[in-house]
Amino acid sequence: MTGRFITLEGGEGAGKTTQCARLVEALMTCHLPVVPTREPGGAPGAELLRGMLLAGGVDWAPQAETLLHFAARAEHVAKTIRPALEEGSWVVCDRFYDSTMAYQGYGQGADRRFISELIRLLGIKPDLTLVLDVPDPVAATRMRQRGGDADRYERLDAAFHARVREGFRQIAATEPDRCVVVDASGGIDAVHAAIMEAVDRLL
Amino acid sequence: MTGRFITLEGGEGAGKTTQCARLVEALMTCHLPVVPTREPGGAPGAELLRGMLLAGGVDWAPQAETLLHFAARAEHVAKTIRPALEEGSWVVCDRFYDSTMAYQGYGQGADRRFISELIRLLGIKPDLTLVLDVPDPVAATRMRQRGGDADRYERLDAAFHARVREGFRQIAATEPDRCVVVDASGGIDAVHAAIMEAVDRLL
Repeated sequence: MTGRFITLEGGEGAGKTTQCARLVEALMTCHLPVVPTREPGGAPGAELLRGMLLAGGVDWAPQAETLLHFAARAEHVAKTIRPALEEGSWVVCDRFYDSTMAYQGYGQGADRRFISELIRLLGIKPDLTLVLDVPDPVAATRMRQRGGDADRYERLDAAFHARVREGFRQIAATEPDRCVVVDASGGIDAVHAAIMEAVDRLL
Repeated sequence: MTGRFITLEGGEGAGKTTQCARLVEALMTCHLPVVPTREPGGAPGAELLRGMLLAGGVDWAPQAETLLHFAARAEHVAKTIRPALEEGSWVVCDRFYDSTMAYQGYGQGADRRFISELIRLLGIKPDLTLVLDVPDPVAATRMRQRGGDADRYERLDAAFHARVREGFRQIAATEPDRCVVVDASGGIDAVHAAIMEAVDRLL
């Protein structure tokens, strides 16, 4: 038996982290072996790079930043995701390569063809990608309620977040077999139900 | 006026660092603006990654290690090499992408096609690459004489260094327009003279 690879994507305030936890819980209730993970990070070397990327100490050139994200991702795939899939686990990942395309490509204007080529070279594709989509005012309210320290991405402005959202929607439109857009503006239970409906086809 | 981009390549004990210094000196004597640099490193963010790669604290997956080298390289190109070339300087670089191909590809068995694709995506090519070639016994003697702390690569065994040497020779054979193999087994002055003969066509 081989596992299933599910990624959750979306902008800030879309509720990815909450929904990842609910999905993991639901799969465990079905007695499935589940490995929850996240990006950037998900393996010791990748977490090291996550710290470097989110701290914002270096103003990386766009190509370098993209390559750093893919270095962390390759480490994550090799050390965590592939081994889990090979032993038959379901991997639920909070962000994956679509986040690089949406944030660096659509949001910051990094070369999207360059990112596409790196995705191709990585050589792994999720079985299902859930794109959590919320209108910008809802996302902004949720981010304010969340409070605490804003990381580098969260400090960027509204126009940036709008480009990221549009990016995720375009990615989903280009790959309808892999991606399902979930309206994430409702309550936690409603969004979870929509996610389980999409996941059902893998069960 | 646009500058010239020269890289020096070769295994441990080939004398690259000494010959880079001599080449820089010679170009300055010709009143040419010269920017000496090195890899991994050559820009603040890239130096940070250099430290991470050479310290050996993480046993990176081969794909991740290759991507880290290219992230450092992309930062180096964007922040140091391209600006220098654009203002008309001659850039003399101690190691560049051929080192990744020789060490990771030929030496450690990382996917050479993956490395080739990253070289293509990087979008820059040296005007001249000098491959300093020495027979293994000469290199070994020089490394012993050098003393001090061996870094991670220098601690690898003789078979590894033989594969690296063969890798550099094959790269040079594949790209004769860009690469010149220099017999680096002689004295410092003799090797420098051979290098200047090759550089002469750029002057």
